[in-house]
Amino acid sequence: MPSISARGKVMPASPIRKLIPFAEEAVRKGLKVYKLNIGQPDIPTPAVALEAVRNISLKVLEYSHSAGNESYRRKLAGFYRSIGIEVDYTDILITTGGSEAVMFAMLTCLDPGDEIITSEPLYANYNGFAVSTGVKIVPVTSSIANDFALPGVEEIEKKITSRTRAILVCNPNNPTGYLYSREELSRLRDIVKKHNLYLFSDEAYREFCYDGEEHFSAMKLDGIEENVVLIDSVSKRYSECGVRIGALITRNRNVIEAALRIAQSRLSPPGLGQIAGEASIDTPPDYFREINREYTLRRNFMVDALNNMPGVYCPKPRGAFYAMARLPVDDADSFARWILEMFEYKKQTVLLAPGSGFYSTPGLGKNEVRIAYVLNTNDLKNAMETLAEALKAYPGRV
Amino acid sequence: MPSISARGKVMPASPIRKLIPFAEEAVRKGLKVYKLNIGQPDIPTPAVALEAVRNISLKVLEYSHSAGNESYRRKLAGFYRSIGIEVDYTDILITTGGSEAVMFAMLTCLDPGDEIITSEPLYANYNGFAVSTGVKIVPVTSSIANDFALPGVEEIEKKITSRTRAILVCNPNNPTGYLYSREELSRLRDIVKKHNLYLFSDEAYREFCYDGEEHFSAMKLDGIEENVVLIDSVSKRYSECGVRIGALITRNRNVIEAALRIAQSRLSPPGLGQIAGEASIDTPPDYFREINREYTLRRNFMVDALNNMPGVYCPKPRGAFYAMARLPVDDADSFARWILEMFEYKKQTVLLAPGSGFYSTPGLGKNEVRIAYVLNTNDLKNAMETLAEALKAYPGRV
Repeated sequence: MPSISARGKVMPASPIRKLIPFAEEAVRKGLKVYKLNIGQPDIPTPAVALEAVRNISLKVLEYSHSAGNESYRRKLAGFYRSIGIEVDYTDILITTGGSEAVMFAMLTCLDPGDEIITSEPLYANYNGFAVSTGVKIVPVTSSIANDFALPGVEEIEKKITSRTRAILVCNPNNPTGYLYSREELSRLRDIVKKHNLYLFSDEAYREFCYDGEEHFSAMKLDGIEENVVLIDSVSKRYSECGVRIGALITRNRNVIEAALRIAQSRLSPPGLGQIAGEASIDTPPDYFREINREYTLRRNFMVDALNNMPGVYCPKPRGAFYAMARLPVDDADSFARWILEMFEYKKQTVLLAPGSGFYSTPGLGKNEVRIAYVLNTNDLKNAMETLAEALKAYPGRV
Repeated sequence: MPSISARGKVMPASPIRKLIPFAEEAVRKGLKVYKLNIGQPDIPTPAVALEAVRNISLKVLEYSHSAGNESYRRKLAGFYRSIGIEVDYTDILITTGGSEAVMFAMLTCLDPGDEIITSEPLYANYNGFAVSTGVKIVPVTSSIANDFALPGVEEIEKKITSRTRAILVCNPNNPTGYLYSREELSRLRDIVKKHNLYLFSDEAYREFCYDGEEHFSAMKLDGIEENVVLIDSVSKRYSECGVRIGALITRNRNVIEAALRIAQSRLSPPGLGQIAGEASIDTPPDYFREINREYTLRRNFMVDALNNMPGVYCPKPRGAFYAMARLPVDDADSFARWILEMFEYKKQTVLLAPGSGFYSTPGLGKNEVRIAYVLNTNDLKNAMETLAEALKAYPGRV
């Protein structure tokens, strides 16, 4: 039997995925398992999107243009202009989820061995894309001690080598919920400009900013118009993760043309998903106001509940729908498994995402977990009660 | 402005794509352009698939399992068993088109610099996937002189080096329409076994075999059960290219597990497409009989028409819906452009796929074109008449 590739072997198995069998076993034992581990919102997909899919009159589900349907790209350019991001539809390449946009950015702008600097904790799948494309993620650590703010310029510049080609920022941040300010992004701009780097800006959670704070897109930074590659997705914005529609957007013609050649080899992005995505642009503003209100409630409740547990610290996220919390445990991986295997409270338990999976630097995040507040407040209440009781009972409490 | 990557620069721009602007210009001039260049069938998608999409009752378009919906995988395993391919649903990973299955196979089984041997002319996008994954396509040339039969064992073995990890066969073949016999595949089996290689079998056109010939799947080869990786797609089988649903299938547990870890980083395959794909399995047999009858008619008409043009030779394809034809021209790239730019017949012209795009070896295929017989016979008749007249008028005729 031939062996698998070295990259197949090192492809990181997510610590979250390792817990799934234990969660399934808990369900079999009759427990209610609250899933705080993944960013699958319970928010309904906008009616306009579902209706558009239900009303398709196509006879043949044909390939679309490799860059996505022109009607969709034109309408999407209008959407961006409506939020102050000036782009033409030819600056947009529709991708198979934000995931493919990250892959295309890596393939187009970096060669194997080239480096991307990004803050950790980070979206764990960046590591997977890096393995697939042969690039190296160089982490600069942001700390829960200062609520995951952008590390200082000196710390970032210390990481720059002759192989550094890009800085990647996820804003609002998954997993920390941190919302980068205009000032922080301006500091990134200066570094990017000084060292002639790309700035990859993953803004999949752009619409999830709380307390009246405004999102500032990297596309609005002056003087690095051709350095910025925007990664976007309809997954979270319209609660349609399953349609697998995202976009790579850049004013750099060389990048968009090379990305299109890569895109042509996979023919086209999903056609039905594009129909949903295009229709979603007509989602009424009420939809977003209601979601914002709901997530604000959930966040406030959850963060308060966590910070009221002895020994727990959770910075208040200002964006996305995740929070990283520090727990008084020896090892969050062990704790997350223990709570599924050995613990129950009123026939309930919880599925957490251990922090270690969000760090590239070995050993970091051992006492942290990421919690997605994608459950309704009643479920969240039960989940937080269960977590509080579990922390009291856990033998590895420190 | 930072420069794009070396791989972004070498990503092959398809000769077909280069012709698109000339075809668009011809349309603007008022010409009818028959598109013989791409494998986008005009056959309607099965009603069961369209109905399933129109009837979705989902409230949230959620992520599916990274390997695809279990209900779909179970049903698909049943489909394969019904055609004599014994697999379990856990041997199946649903992918974003056959394209992603090829990518996953390359990433899982080969490291950068490793080699895949495949016959040329070849499906041009294999070159694109090879650039993306850093692997090397090593062509062994099959010749129009013997109707594109599998090259001899010696010729294939001559290409094996210490970096060879896989042999790739596309059966029925795109672009040649060649259907590999059980005997030819058994010869491949012997090579694969002797040199401990993978055998990637792209069977996207399995359902398109003519004249009563039966497809023999590489999954049925004895003694290399763990070497075979099947690449499949619903695109052609159900004329639903746009849903972007394919599959990677293998009995090799290490491969399927590593491929799943890669798949997890992109979260899930398209959800709406999976609904169409799953429903399509219930397509009544009549649908396929009718398509087979229709394509047989088209093929017979087209191949006869081509072989009746002085100086043209076109082997009769026994599978897929493409034919490679040798034309009496100096350069098929120039001819394909000339016919769009400089020629018209009864206000008509044709868009051809130049043969050079299907060869890895520079200089080959210069007097060949690939023609997809995806048009109805009336359109095909007009297209062939136009082509015949163009060949008479072309200044570069040889």
